Amino acid sequence: MEENNQTPEPEHQDLLQDLSEQGKTEELVEMFEELPTMDVAEFMEDKPMEDIIRYLKKLDMEDQGRIFSDFTHDLQLKLFKALDRRTFARIFGQVFSDIRADLYQGLSKEEQIELLPYLDKKTREDVIILSAYPPETAGGIMNTDFATIFADMTAAEALAKIRKDAPSTNMIYYIYVVDHSMVMKGLVTLKDLVMHDPTDKVLEMLNEFFVYAEVNEDRESVAQKIERYDLVAIPVLNSLSQLVGIVSHEEAIDIIKREATEDLEKIMGIMPSEDDDDYLLTSSFHHFKKRVVWLVSLAAVGIISGMIINEHQGVLESFIILAMYMPMMAATGGNTGSQAATVVIRALSLGEIDDKDWAKIIFKETKISFMLSICVALLTYLKIAFLSFHSLLPEGFSMSYIGIIISVAIAIQVVTSAVIGAALPLIVRRLGGDPAVVASPAITTIVDITGLLIYFTVASLTLGIS
Amino acid sequence: MEENNQTPEPEHQDLLQDLSEQGKTEELVEMFEELPTMDVAEFMEDKPMEDIIRYLKKLDMEDQGRIFSDFTHDLQLKLFKALDRRTFARIFGQVFSDIRADLYQGLSKEEQIELLPYLDKKTREDVIILSAYPPETAGGIMNTDFATIFADMTAAEALAKIRKDAPSTNMIYYIYVVDHSMVMKGLVTLKDLVMHDPTDKVLEMLNEFFVYAEVNEDRESVAQKIERYDLVAIPVLNSLSQLVGIVSHEEAIDIIKREATEDLEKIMGIMPSEDDDDYLLTSSFHHFKKRVVWLVSLAAVGIISGMIINEHQGVLESFIILAMYMPMMAATGGNTGSQAATVVIRALSLGEIDDKDWAKIIFKETKISFMLSICVALLTYLKIAFLSFHSLLPEGFSMSYIGIIISVAIAIQVVTSAVIGAALPLIVRRLGGDPAVVASPAITTIVDITGLLIYFTVASLTLGIS
Repeated sequence: MEENNQTPEPEHQDLLQDLSEQGKTEELVEMFEELPTMDVAEFMEDKPMEDIIRYLKKLDMEDQGRIFSDFTHDLQLKLFKALDRRTFARIFGQVFSDIRADLYQGLSKEEQIELLPYLDKKTREDVIILSAYPPETAGGIMNTDFATIFADMTAAEALAKIRKDAPSTNMIYYIYVVDHSMVMKGLVTLKDLVMHDPTDKVLEMLNEFFVYAEVNEDRESVAQKIERYDLVAIPVLNSLSQLVGIVSHEEAIDIIKREATEDLEKIMGIMPSEDDDDYLLTSSFHHFKKRVVWLVSLAAVGIISGMIINEHQGVLESFIILAMYMPMMAATGGNTGSQAATVVIRALSLGEIDDKDWAKIIFKETKISFMLSICVALLTYLKIAFLSFHSLLPEGFSMSYIGIIISVAIAIQVVTSAVIGAALPLIVRRLGGDPAVVASPAITTIVDITGLLIYFTVASLTLGIS
Repeated sequence: MEENNQTPEPEHQDLLQDLSEQGKTEELVEMFEELPTMDVAEFMEDKPMEDIIRYLKKLDMEDQGRIFSDFTHDLQLKLFKALDRRTFARIFGQVFSDIRADLYQGLSKEEQIELLPYLDKKTREDVIILSAYPPETAGGIMNTDFATIFADMTAAEALAKIRKDAPSTNMIYYIYVVDHSMVMKGLVTLKDLVMHDPTDKVLEMLNEFFVYAEVNEDRESVAQKIERYDLVAIPVLNSLSQLVGIVSHEEAIDIIKREATEDLEKIMGIMPSEDDDDYLLTSSFHHFKKRVVWLVSLAAVGIISGMIINEHQGVLESFIILAMYMPMMAATGGNTGSQAATVVIRALSLGEIDDKDWAKIIFKETKISFMLSICVALLTYLKIAFLSFHSLLPEGFSMSYIGIIISVAIAIQVVTSAVIGAALPLIVRRLGGDPAVVASPAITTIVDITGLLIYFTVASLTLGIS
């Protein structure tokens, strides 16, 4: 993912930069109103604080709120400190409700108490309510910028109400139909209202079987609903079926991305946890806890490898050359197994394959790893031939014979590791688990053991010692 | 990611199942019209082909198209084979344009030629044009279900044109303003049209600085624009600035997910390639090519480990116990390094950290790995104390002394590996590369080497042999 390398539309930035350098402030402010807010926000972010404040003050309240919403959390906090409370409260009232609640939660208790008296009643209540929900729930990510109508209105009346209510509302693709206690009855799209005859009743176009999220629902489940039903936004209901907010598709993209990259950590044996924060904000001890379990368990299992080596001390003593290729044996097995597991986990999570396809998958991995094993075995043989000619061997054994033995062992290791790596996520999925927890470290540890068994078995059989 | 475990809304499925079992076909068909299409599509998918066809035929054309659009690609193809050409062509005309083009491309040349004469002219042209764009470009993922108006219309005239044109249009959140040669002049939202006075000109509310994609633009860049600007859909223009399609946010979610999981493969040393297809559809040889480069390169580098061991043959011969703990040394280093790299890569890709934070990150990883090293070293000492008491040691050396030496070496290895694992992605990012290519296999191979160096250095220094 390269989204952090994204450059803003260069034309838009150049346009703003030129106007700013030529001192054409009036034209610049006009462009602020015309260009996408994200471009304006990024342009301002690089400017000194006085300029940012000067620019903001030239804009109307609504534009101030929109642009402020697109600032980084850091800059938002800096502006809170730089502006007097009254000016800040005025902008704050125009900021999108979910971003406003996040910012409020980023303030210290003292700062929150300082700010509250300056907010109007509606904003104050909204901020306090939105801040009350845990961040990993629908309530924690929802916003309150939605439009509502009543079922007994005509299309024309509904549109009139929206015209009256909606200027402050960002998203009016869906219009929510509620009763007088805000219990949600259904929804219509703005398109429905526009396409119908103005005298048609809302009730006639009402979509009663709508998809919704519960306010305590896990945010990942909310994102999945948005994805599954291709929604622009999903309504959030409380236990009394009252409409309390909406979650929009932008949030879903963010959550889905977070979830996809979480798989990465699982595969590396890092335990996911609910209260994960940004990397630098998370305490070292919390990071430690997330990693230690797998690391220590695998180190504990690693004793088996040690025991196998101990068992075959005799072979190792006679053929010290075998010890030289032991690390390569383990590493190649781990790499092949992890690659196979990753490809299978990814295909499972993108829905390209299903655990029912297991026979096809194992067959395919066998074919792929057979090709890989030929390359690795050839390389191993060449390495031994070129590099180990001076090694001492017991009488009666030629280096080329030993080379073949080691190469055959490593070829078997590659195929076995790929099959194990592909099979484990399929088994976990079949058992109802998350295939991504078949961490790469686990596979590495398993194929370390199988690899040593293969290595010493092949050696014992062909060299006649154990 | 668990999106494949997603169950459809259980209530909706139960509702349909009950009606179906009670043989209430009329009520069932009514529900088909009311419920979200995705739920209806999934309900039908489990039924025998005759039932699916029977159900579809009871629905009006538009609902047929919507539900068919949500069927799996497989079922769509089966229906193509099961239905007579004329019936299929009628449904096909109502299917969303991007899904229609994908299905058309899934047919054989003969089947395409068979189908074309049954399609109306508009559908035929649309399918052929959409199929012409490469799948990894904006053109390859766009649809043609958009609404257009002219700038000199009033809001009322614009709404009238939309009412006339739009019934076939899925997405009319944005209304595109074009001239008579389809050159795009700007856009208005449906909200703009509704909120303005009916006599206001479209020109007055026109958003001229809109974000757009070029038809040949890479689809990842298109998805990033949708994400960055929080768009519901993005217009796609050709080289003459003519509006040729739109890409909607659903596509963006799909692409972003694909991209995020691609990182996983990169980290495991699997080369991404442009023409990647589904796992089972990709040939084994193509899979092989994507994995072989890293695998063989790393196996080649692995020779260094072998050389280090060869160098210290003397120590190994005197203290065979050292050989027993070599695999654990390598595996623990690899695991720690990969974990650290993964956490850093993820934080980079989510924008939580920046390569400028390198000092803080390295300091943090040092602290975390220090805690990890204490746990691992303790475990190692206990293992040696309990399991190796019967090992033979040269005179003058106690098992507890050797235990301490091995534990110290492994503790150093854990800290070094974490720092190397965290530093590499940061260095690659600083050099302008993609941090995810610092594959876990590469880190494993590096810390194998540093681990052996640490191991034998500590052993030589403390045991007085080399």
